[in-house]
Amino acid sequence: MSKKLTPRSEDYSKWYNELVVKADLAENSGVRGCMVIKPYGYAIWEKMQAALDTMFKETGHENAYFPLFIPKSYLSKEASHVDGFAKECAVVTHYRLKNDENGNGIIVDPDAKLEEELIVRPTSETIIWDTYRRWIQSYRDLPILINQWANVVRWEMRTRLFLRTAEFLWQEGHTAHATKQEAIEEAERMMNVYATFAEEFMAVPVIKGLKTASERFAGAEETYCIEALMQDGKALQAGTSHYLGQNFAKAFDVKYATKEGKQEYVWATSWGVSTRLMGALVMTHSDDQGLVLPPKLAPIHVVIVPIYKGEEQLETLAEYVKPYITDLRAKGLTVKFDDRDTLKPGFKFAEYEQKGVPVRIAIGARDIENGTFEVARRDLLSKEAVSADQLTSYIVELLDDIQKTIYQKALDYRSSHITEVNSYEEFKDILETKGGFIAAHWDGTPESEAAIQEETKATIRCIPLDAKEEEGSCIYSGKPSKMRVLFAKAY
Amino acid sequence: MSKKLTPRSEDYSKWYNELVVKADLAENSGVRGCMVIKPYGYAIWEKMQAALDTMFKETGHENAYFPLFIPKSYLSKEASHVDGFAKECAVVTHYRLKNDENGNGIIVDPDAKLEEELIVRPTSETIIWDTYRRWIQSYRDLPILINQWANVVRWEMRTRLFLRTAEFLWQEGHTAHATKQEAIEEAERMMNVYATFAEEFMAVPVIKGLKTASERFAGAEETYCIEALMQDGKALQAGTSHYLGQNFAKAFDVKYATKEGKQEYVWATSWGVSTRLMGALVMTHSDDQGLVLPPKLAPIHVVIVPIYKGEEQLETLAEYVKPYITDLRAKGLTVKFDDRDTLKPGFKFAEYEQKGVPVRIAIGARDIENGTFEVARRDLLSKEAVSADQLTSYIVELLDDIQKTIYQKALDYRSSHITEVNSYEEFKDILETKGGFIAAHWDGTPESEAAIQEETKATIRCIPLDAKEEEGSCIYSGKPSKMRVLFAKAY
Repeated sequence: MSKKLTPRSEDYSKWYNELVVKADLAENSGVRGCMVIKPYGYAIWEKMQAALDTMFKETGHENAYFPLFIPKSYLSKEASHVDGFAKECAVVTHYRLKNDENGNGIIVDPDAKLEEELIVRPTSETIIWDTYRRWIQSYRDLPILINQWANVVRWEMRTRLFLRTAEFLWQEGHTAHATKQEAIEEAERMMNVYATFAEEFMAVPVIKGLKTASERFAGAEETYCIEALMQDGKALQAGTSHYLGQNFAKAFDVKYATKEGKQEYVWATSWGVSTRLMGALVMTHSDDQGLVLPPKLAPIHVVIVPIYKGEEQLETLAEYVKPYITDLRAKGLTVKFDDRDTLKPGFKFAEYEQKGVPVRIAIGARDIENGTFEVARRDLLSKEAVSADQLTSYIVELLDDIQKTIYQKALDYRSSHITEVNSYEEFKDILETKGGFIAAHWDGTPESEAAIQEETKATIRCIPLDAKEEEGSCIYSGKPSKMRVLFAKAY
Repeated sequence: MSKKLTPRSEDYSKWYNELVVKADLAENSGVRGCMVIKPYGYAIWEKMQAALDTMFKETGHENAYFPLFIPKSYLSKEASHVDGFAKECAVVTHYRLKNDENGNGIIVDPDAKLEEELIVRPTSETIIWDTYRRWIQSYRDLPILINQWANVVRWEMRTRLFLRTAEFLWQEGHTAHATKQEAIEEAERMMNVYATFAEEFMAVPVIKGLKTASERFAGAEETYCIEALMQDGKALQAGTSHYLGQNFAKAFDVKYATKEGKQEYVWATSWGVSTRLMGALVMTHSDDQGLVLPPKLAPIHVVIVPIYKGEEQLETLAEYVKPYITDLRAKGLTVKFDDRDTLKPGFKFAEYEQKGVPVRIAIGARDIENGTFEVARRDLLSKEAVSADQLTSYIVELLDDIQKTIYQKALDYRSSHITEVNSYEEFKDILETKGGFIAAHWDGTPESEAAIQEETKATIRCIPLDAKEEEGSCIYSGKPSKMRVLFAKAY
C-alpha cells in the first residue's frame, strides 16, 4: 500500500495495473485470464449493479436466469454470430474426472465424453432465443423485456484486469418485440439508460453513436454504443445496445400470430455493460495518488481518522465523534471511523487516498478545542477547517460538489480532446501527438476504415448520433463524405 | 395456466413439477440438467438474496468474486474434497472452435487443447484458499469474512427443477480465522442466520443439527445444517455451514504469524444456500390450487382485479382504486392492478391463485356503492368484504397474519411428524405409513447408518443441537446409544 504508484506520465498502463491492485479492487488469479474481484472493488460493482438494476426495472424490465452452457449446435444457428464468438470460447467436452489407474492423480474420464460439446456462454442470444420460441405464440406474449446478471467467458490471449478478462461479470438484456419500430426504440432507450448511468453515477461523459458495419456485434443489424475517453487519450467502449432485426428469430424460428392472425418473425434487441466499466471508472478520474471515486459509487463516503496519543485520548475522540457519525449516517452516507491502533495517521491518509474515499475527516484534541474538523476532499487533495456545527451540511454539499467537479473535469478533458482534422497527415499527427477523438470525414467503406486501422491503429469509435450533415472528403480515399465520424485508438 | 394441477394426494412429485412450471417459476432448458429461472421465479430468488445479503453484511461479511474455473490440480490438493467433487463436474478441455475443413460445421479445434483442464466450480474452497494464501500473512489480516453470489455446476444424472440441477445459483461464504474457537463460532453463527432466514422470511420451520461423519461436506471437520420437512413427509436439507478446521489451510499452505511471531495454519469455515430453497418454499406451503407464498418473499403482495362491463366501467373502477393503491404502496407493498381486457375475472383469479399472490382484491360497481372491497387471502382461500376506509390497515395486518399462519401450519405439520420409535420394526412401519422425521437411537457407527439407509432409504438427517442425553439402544444394532438422532427419507 505505502509504496507509491508509477506516475501516469511515466507509464500510464503500468500506473493502471498497479492502481487496481493497490486500491484493493482486483487481482489476477491462479487461473489464466480470470481475475479475483476483491471486496472493495466488488462493493463498487454492487453499487453500479444497484443503480443499473433500478433503471432497468423503471423501464419495464424483469430479471431472469438462463443456462451457463450453450450446446455447440445453438451457436451455429445464426451465421454471423458463430463467426464472431466461436473463435475464443471455453469448451466443455467431459462431465467426470477419475483416479488414474497408473497413479497419475485425477484425470479426465474418457468414458464421460459429452455427445455434444457445451460452450460456456460468451453471450446468451442463442440459448435465450431457443427459450423464447417456447414463450412466444401471439402478439399478446409481446414485448418480452428481460435482463440477466451473469458471468460470461471469452477466451482472451492478452488480458488486463477489468478491461479484458477471460471471465467477466455483466448484465445482458434480451428483448422481443412485435414491430421493427418498437425494437429500434428499445435499443435506443437502453443506450440512453447507459449514457445517463455513465454520466450521472460514474461521472464519465460519453458520446452516443452508432458502430460502423465492421464494428457491429456479430448478429446485429445496428449497434448503438457509448464511448468514453480515458486520460491517456484512448477511447473506451463503455456499453453497447444492439438492434438485432429478425436475425435470431429466423435462426431459432420464433414467430408470433398478429392480431389479424398472420405469422410474423419477432424483432429483437440485446444490450450489455460489464465489469469493464470498473476500468473506465478508474482510468477516467484517478491520479498519481490513487483512485478517485464519484461519491455516488463510493463504498465509503467519509472516513474519520483520529489523531491521538494513548488509549484515553482515543476514547475521548471516539465518544466525541459519535453524534456526528450518527448525523452523517442519517443522511444515507457510509461513514468509517478508523480506530486501528497499529497504524499511524499518515499511513491511513495515504491508504484512503489510494482507495479513493471522497472525504477524509481528521480530528484531534486541538480540533475539539477549536470546535472544528479538518475536512479533506480526495479529488482536489485540498483541506479545510470546518465548524463542527456545520459539519453534516458541509459534507453533504461537498460530496455533491465532488460528483460535479470530477464530471466537469472529465468533460473539459474530453472537450479539449475532440479534434477536427481535414487531411490524413493531420490525422496521423494528432493521433500521435495529442490523441483523443478525431472527427474526420470518411467515405463509408470498410476498405478505407480497415486501411486507416492497419496504418494507424485508430478505429472508428462511432458515428455520433448528433453528427451534423457536412460535405467533405474522406481523409483516406478523398471520396465524398456527408458527415464526420469519430476515430481514436481504443481499449 | 387454466388446466388444473395433479392433486398432491395423487402424485406429489408430479404436482411439484407441474406447479413449478405453471406458476411461472422455472422450466427445463435445451441444455441437459440446466433450468431457466423465469422472471416470476427469479423475483422470489431476488427477495431471498436481498434478505440474506443484508443478514450477511450485518454479521460483518463482504461480497467478492472468484473465478468460475478451477485448475484440475487445485481440486486434488485436499484429499477428501476431490473424492467428493471430482466425480460429477463439467470439464473444460479446449478454448476454441473452428470450421471443419470437411464441411461438418463447427468443431472443437484440436490445436486449442488446454495444458491443464479447467473444472467449472462445483464449490470454491480450492480457488479461494489459493487466493487467501496471498492475502494472509499475519494475525492482523484475520479474520477474513467473505461471501460470493455465484453459479456452480455439479453434473447430475437425475435432475428436478430447483431441487437438483446441474447448474444452480447459490451463495458461498468462505471465512478465515486465527483460532479454532472463532471458526466454530462462525460456522454456528451462519447456521443460525440460515435458520432465522428460513423461519422468518420463508416461514419454513427448520431443525438445527450436525451431520454425521458420512454425511459431512467433503473436506469438513463438522457440518452444521438446517433441515426442513416437506408436505409429503420427506426431509429437505435447506442449508449447510461447515467448520473446515485447518484442512484447506494445510492443503494450500496458508499460515499466519501470531502476535508472538509464531507461524500457524489458518482455521476455516464455508457455508451456503442455493436455489434449492425455492424448492423448499414451494413444497412447504403450496396446495392443489397452486403456489402459496409468504408475504415477505412475494413479488406481488396484492393484486386488484376489476369486475366490469365495458370500457367506461373499467375507467371508473381504475380511477376509484387509485388512492387505495397509492396508500398500499406507501406501506411498502407491491400492488398490481390487472386491467387486461382479454381475460375474464375468473381466469385471473385462478391465475393469481396458481402464482400464490397472498392477497387478491376484487372490486365492482356494487362494491363501490357498498363502500367495500372483496378481499381474498390465498393461504386459506377465504374471502371477506372489507370496509373501504379500513382497507390499508386491514391488508397490512392480513399480510402479517398470512406470514404467521403459514409458518404455524408448517410447524404444526412438522410437530405431528416427528415420531419417537424404539425398535427397527416400528421405525420401518412409521417410515412407510407416516413418514416425517423419526427420532431413534443409533450406535454412532457408519456401519449401522449405512445398513439402515440400504434397507429403508432413510438417512440420518441430523443430530439435533438440542438433543437431550438419554440412555437407549440402537434400533439397528442394539448397541448402547446416548441420544436420539433424526432419520427421514430426504430430497
